[in-house]
Amino acid sequence: MPFVPPEVLLLGPGPSPTSPAVRMAQSAPLLGHLDPAFLPVLEGVQQSLRTLFGTQNALTLPIAGTGTAGMELLVANLVEPGDRVVLGVHGVFGQRFAEAARRAGGDVVEVRAEFGHSLALEAMERAIAAGPTRLVGVVHAETSTGVLTDLKPIAAAARAHGALFAVDCVTSLAGVGLHFDALGVDAAFSGTQKCLSAPPGLSPITFSPRALAKAQARRNPPPFYFDTRLLTGYFGPDRAYHYTAPISMIYAIAAALDEVAAEGMAARETRHRRVAAALRAGLEPLGLVPLVPVPEATPMLTTIRYPDGVDDKAFRAHLRQVHEIEVGGGLGSLAGKVFRVGLMGHGARLPNVLRALAAFGDALGALGHRADLGAALAAARASHA
Amino acid sequence: MPFVPPEVLLLGPGPSPTSPAVRMAQSAPLLGHLDPAFLPVLEGVQQSLRTLFGTQNALTLPIAGTGTAGMELLVANLVEPGDRVVLGVHGVFGQRFAEAARRAGGDVVEVRAEFGHSLALEAMERAIAAGPTRLVGVVHAETSTGVLTDLKPIAAAARAHGALFAVDCVTSLAGVGLHFDALGVDAAFSGTQKCLSAPPGLSPITFSPRALAKAQARRNPPPFYFDTRLLTGYFGPDRAYHYTAPISMIYAIAAALDEVAAEGMAARETRHRRVAAALRAGLEPLGLVPLVPVPEATPMLTTIRYPDGVDDKAFRAHLRQVHEIEVGGGLGSLAGKVFRVGLMGHGARLPNVLRALAAFGDALGALGHRADLGAALAAARASHA
Repeated sequence: MPFVPPEVLLLGPGPSPTSPAVRMAQSAPLLGHLDPAFLPVLEGVQQSLRTLFGTQNALTLPIAGTGTAGMELLVANLVEPGDRVVLGVHGVFGQRFAEAARRAGGDVVEVRAEFGHSLALEAMERAIAAGPTRLVGVVHAETSTGVLTDLKPIAAAARAHGALFAVDCVTSLAGVGLHFDALGVDAAFSGTQKCLSAPPGLSPITFSPRALAKAQARRNPPPFYFDTRLLTGYFGPDRAYHYTAPISMIYAIAAALDEVAAEGMAARETRHRRVAAALRAGLEPLGLVPLVPVPEATPMLTTIRYPDGVDDKAFRAHLRQVHEIEVGGGLGSLAGKVFRVGLMGHGARLPNVLRALAAFGDALGALGHRADLGAALAAARASHA
Repeated sequence: MPFVPPEVLLLGPGPSPTSPAVRMAQSAPLLGHLDPAFLPVLEGVQQSLRTLFGTQNALTLPIAGTGTAGMELLVANLVEPGDRVVLGVHGVFGQRFAEAARRAGGDVVEVRAEFGHSLALEAMERAIAAGPTRLVGVVHAETSTGVLTDLKPIAAAARAHGALFAVDCVTSLAGVGLHFDALGVDAAFSGTQKCLSAPPGLSPITFSPRALAKAQARRNPPPFYFDTRLLTGYFGPDRAYHYTAPISMIYAIAAALDEVAAEGMAARETRHRRVAAALRAGLEPLGLVPLVPVPEATPMLTTIRYPDGVDDKAFRAHLRQVHEIEVGGGLGSLAGKVFRVGLMGHGARLPNVLRALAAFGDALGALGHRADLGAALAAARASHA
């Protein structure tokens, strides 16, 4: 008899909860990866991803692997040994992006900001201008801190200096509207288990014609798995075998993308912003303070400081064991100091906010801190009304 | 409404059909990748994979990506620029293995055999002995031809010359018994969509302590995604975040491995051999000839020559459109000359053999070739009795 998981409400940094339609799609019988009934599903996924990225890029597709595989594909194709790469680093995912680019042989210049703060635009511009920069990279929604980066001026600076502009949009895709062609984003990678609410295991990627030209002019080919030539062999009219597409995951992302299209991206972004605001409204009566102020904060992930004396492990264990709710702990320099609440995709709904606030208040009470649960829920409701 | 695939009987080179239990497992609600209820599932998968590989290797785990990602991980960790690598190449998957090792900087020596034939042991031994060989690699069950390689003497030659021995067991895992520790296999990668009958998208890998030592003594670290240090950080007692485990796929492989354990690997291997024999028995009355003779043939995949004048595309289109059966075409130098029939995992059952033989005979008839369907089915039944 297969494993039956407990019904944990996933309000961490991902995976987010999948909808019944997505779960049903996953359980469908397999088709072959070249089957005439499967290929239109794959094409539909590619077209829906173009819409979500805001791009016409032909090379827009889901690769088999998590968001980190998408990051790896990006640096494997766009970083050659000795290339000057300017990376914004204001959280753990920026650190990883920089590390991956270094391993690919890049001469990486990190523009750092304190965790929880935004990147300083002037510092990014100075670093980009300071050399023949080949690639500029930033994390759009830093999942370790909850800071949303304004891509527009960085894109403009990269373009002005002839550099490609690459974006980690793992957590922002399908949570906020993306307009990559209008901004001048050349390459991006994402994940499925955040605001798309599909299971983890695929990474949607997109490469502009400029990025593709750079990839295909490399002196040495990238690893076989990540070769854009081989990927486009399968994801193009030739349908040449590269590797077996992860059929069930493609069914799942197709169903998730259908749900995004049915809702409309503008309405979906508004929904994410409204539930994030409701959560924030409810935090104050609990004595909880968000790490990042609203103008810079991601709507899909809110990082919350612990009051003095509240133990991270005890707090999260109470949520998981007593309330069957998952939230995330802090990463890197924020470990033990914050917890992270994701209201993403199918999980971004008011009932989940109310359940979470009640549980946070109860956990604080159990750990000896007073919190006004009634006021918290009323404030969240009023914010959302 | 989610996409509802047609019910195609998957008798190609993979994916193979998933069982109801595996499909049910995939549709379960997600858990977090660090959830206390999820981690025992992951540990169970690792332990079951050790049993199937026939190893005690601590580093035995499923990575997020297809079998090709497992190949990439293997070369990324075990091949350093300039390393002499001897690879057996007697099919498309050997060619890919060699190409991946070259891209990783290896000084690759290919020991070739004609597609459909076995590697010559003496040629492998000579190539291994001819230099300070760091790595020897072969494909256990060549999915492009249906040849099964005898690993034992090659493992012995590699060990005698101080080289690591690496095996592509994508198609053999869970179809024939593997005894990697007893043989001296140092590293291997597999897939899930062949004899395990889980959906594609995971690659089970295993590294011996010797292989791990080589990986961790590298001058330059491998790509972030494939770093064995980071993988063992998550798949070990620390449970350090590396990337989000593909939860639904882990549920699926756990269910598939439970089915393997319930059947027993010896019985499962016998089942694969019996249905392959039944298929072969039924081919002769149809005027069809297998490419590879029995002693060298893989039981899970049979490559069949087309009679003169039978068009590959027309034959396979008839099977898919009229009978809703998928078989594979030829790859590389065998394209258009053969078709490939997989009887793998949940698909390896007599009713599927009988349905396939009837459909083959009908397709031949539709294309103007006489075939005795009644004799074919009777011969298959008699073989299986």
